[in-house]
Amino acid sequence: MRMYDIIEKKREGEALSREEIAYFVSGVVSGEIPDYQTSALLMAICLRGMTSEETAWLTVEMEHSGETVDLSSLPGVKADKHSTGGVGDKTTLVLGPIVASLGVSMAKMSGRGLGHTGGTIDKLESIPGLRTAFSRGEFLDIVRRVGICVAGQSGNLVPADKKLYALRDVTATVESLPLIASSIMSKKLAAGADCILLDVKVGSGAFMKTEEDARALAREMVTIADHAGRRAAALLTDMDRPLGFAIGNALEVREACDTLQGRGPADLTELCVELAAGILLLAGKASGWEEGRALASGQLHNGRAFETFRAMVRAQGGNGESLSRDELLPHAPVRRPIRAETEGFLTAMNTQQIGAASVKLGAGREKKEDAIDYGAGILLRKKTGDHVHAGDMLAELFASSEARCEAAEQAFRGALRFSETIPPSRPIVLGRVGF
Amino acid sequence: MRMYDIIEKKREGEALSREEIAYFVSGVVSGEIPDYQTSALLMAICLRGMTSEETAWLTVEMEHSGETVDLSSLPGVKADKHSTGGVGDKTTLVLGPIVASLGVSMAKMSGRGLGHTGGTIDKLESIPGLRTAFSRGEFLDIVRRVGICVAGQSGNLVPADKKLYALRDVTATVESLPLIASSIMSKKLAAGADCILLDVKVGSGAFMKTEEDARALAREMVTIADHAGRRAAALLTDMDRPLGFAIGNALEVREACDTLQGRGPADLTELCVELAAGILLLAGKASGWEEGRALASGQLHNGRAFETFRAMVRAQGGNGESLSRDELLPHAPVRRPIRAETEGFLTAMNTQQIGAASVKLGAGREKKEDAIDYGAGILLRKKTGDHVHAGDMLAELFASSEARCEAAEQAFRGALRFSETIPPSRPIVLGRVGF
Repeated sequence: MRMYDIIEKKREGEALSREEIAYFVSGVVSGEIPDYQTSALLMAICLRGMTSEETAWLTVEMEHSGETVDLSSLPGVKADKHSTGGVGDKTTLVLGPIVASLGVSMAKMSGRGLGHTGGTIDKLESIPGLRTAFSRGEFLDIVRRVGICVAGQSGNLVPADKKLYALRDVTATVESLPLIASSIMSKKLAAGADCILLDVKVGSGAFMKTEEDARALAREMVTIADHAGRRAAALLTDMDRPLGFAIGNALEVREACDTLQGRGPADLTELCVELAAGILLLAGKASGWEEGRALASGQLHNGRAFETFRAMVRAQGGNGESLSRDELLPHAPVRRPIRAETEGFLTAMNTQQIGAASVKLGAGREKKEDAIDYGAGILLRKKTGDHVHAGDMLAELFASSEARCEAAEQAFRGALRFSETIPPSRPIVLGRVGF
Repeated sequence: MRMYDIIEKKREGEALSREEIAYFVSGVVSGEIPDYQTSALLMAICLRGMTSEETAWLTVEMEHSGETVDLSSLPGVKADKHSTGGVGDKTTLVLGPIVASLGVSMAKMSGRGLGHTGGTIDKLESIPGLRTAFSRGEFLDIVRRVGICVAGQSGNLVPADKKLYALRDVTATVESLPLIASSIMSKKLAAGADCILLDVKVGSGAFMKTEEDARALAREMVTIADHAGRRAAALLTDMDRPLGFAIGNALEVREACDTLQGRGPADLTELCVELAAGILLLAGKASGWEEGRALASGQLHNGRAFETFRAMVRAQGGNGESLSRDELLPHAPVRRPIRAETEGFLTAMNTQQIGAASVKLGAGREKKEDAIDYGAGILLRKKTGDHVHAGDMLAELFASSEARCEAAEQAFRGALRFSETIPPSRPIVLGRVGF
């Protein structure tokens, strides 16, 4: 088999065989296939596409390109969730404890934030003392005891994705449905869960700008799971405005705690309940959406979800008290209120720009090496659809310096659109795929 | 400017600007753009194409990526010819002396053969003593004295093409009209001639298998020359069978000498007269095809073309006597007649396979490093359209050993198709573009 022939075949728009895909993935990982051949094939895939079968084969070959996590020693059903990334997305901190408190284990590996979207690991690390690096044994032990652990990615999981992603990132070959789907799903499959719920974001703050694209990605990922013998389904959810009111690590932990106690923002609560219900359905713990939603919602009001979260924080070495005593979480020294200059309806929020403003405040990273200011971020006071008077507070910015606030204010204001007429409302959950 | 953005733009099917193309070419030559980005762009060009303007800009940037040849010190019109490559194609050895003997200078740089097609330099080097490596000064001096010199490529001409072609060759990005056209034309422009005649081959032995593809390539190349302010035109010519009867270096020199003396094969003579007439038209030495053809044909019969060829051979250090005394040219020790097994019409010759058979005999190279046996090759006795009886000689093979003949015979026989009905005849010149 020759890489040249594989590239030529894909250039001509033909489907690759399973053997050809396996040859490609193993050659990438071993280094036998040079980057210039790999990037030529990646571009051909971008422009010619892949069948669902090819995409599934690529995913499974990538999954097995390195270590995989064996969760078989854990009792019951193991679930995982993946979000395609958003601004203010702290759902893992809420829905994880909900389903864990209902007997569905979450052995979750999560990432750090980069660019305009935050990472669950960074949010958790704003809790004093909390660790996210564990040996495989410690990790499984916490899941066994508490029902949930959220750890950083460890071990040599899916090295093929690391290599391919690094190359896609510099060759303009990221935007490809089969490559995006196989990248996400190879990591989810390698992480070992039985059930995988996918939260595919749609809108100005998301990778998928249209519902049509998001639905296509969701379908592709569900099909991959079918081929691999796992249960997966997806929700298409709104990312045309930030999720909840808090953006920034400690700010988001506080909002997650409120939500876990039944007093969170409506959109965040609704999404977490829906996502948790989806996992309960996949895991066979509920027989319909109504039952799943009622079960999930109940755990927010009876205190069990919050107690599970606190137990997880403690098991991961964090200060459980800090979840109830705000002063124990990081705070930013400088606060700047952003007030409306005119009256009108807030009709649009460019969520990617708002994420970029939070990065300017210090809440995120522009480059991998950047340090994060856990106290920094944005607390929104108004969101799309709200009516404002001149002088109303639109948001508060939190940072270590006035200079950072200054830079962020400009970016933040530039992300907002006002008008005299009320915009159409849009639900947080736009669709379900694969249920 | 960033290479990433250029790749993305072409991936989306947009036209690149002249500045973007210049940035790309200079980055490739300087090594600042890594191969993996270059190959991603090459694949995007293969699949998205380029406008005629983009292709012309790419060509001119490539032309100026290294040294160029300055022919302004030579008197009169300077012409060049390019063939897209064929089997048995010794036209340069005939039409060059024709037009040189009529006052059109040919300062021709030519290549060596690789794969199933031979190279003019290899053919000439089968003449005892003949050199093809000259300083720029010697080269121009021979052209000034004799009217023609055929030298190997020297100097740092079009380094961008060398780098790009090496990468295209291993990333399945050779088959792209704008990339093929710019590769050919950048070298022709850098070689400095005023008039460029393109011989675009069509058929089983050619890169372009259909007349439609060949015409598109010819048009693209003529358009490039227009943009660059040179005169160019093209002939589309048949390569569905080998040209003439001789395939192999010394065998082809002999056939060229016969043709230069008015006793060559009909197809080769016809093509050389037509190509020479085309150059005479481009150079303003003839006002119509009839006049051009009459002038060219006259030089084959009055001995002037042959004498010009002998003068060139002598000026290049070769034994001029060998052109008239066959025993002074290389001979192969083993000859094997190939005879027909049944009666019928020879209806098709797979020219690429016949070229491959000649390589097995030692007449060509599979790899760049391979040595050539100048005496080896094939003398055809029958060509497409001929009727044969069982036992008739189809061809003679020439090689250094019976083993080589054995291997080549199989390949040669496999290239022929016979039938009971006479095939439609096909002219050698299929079309003219740009006159």
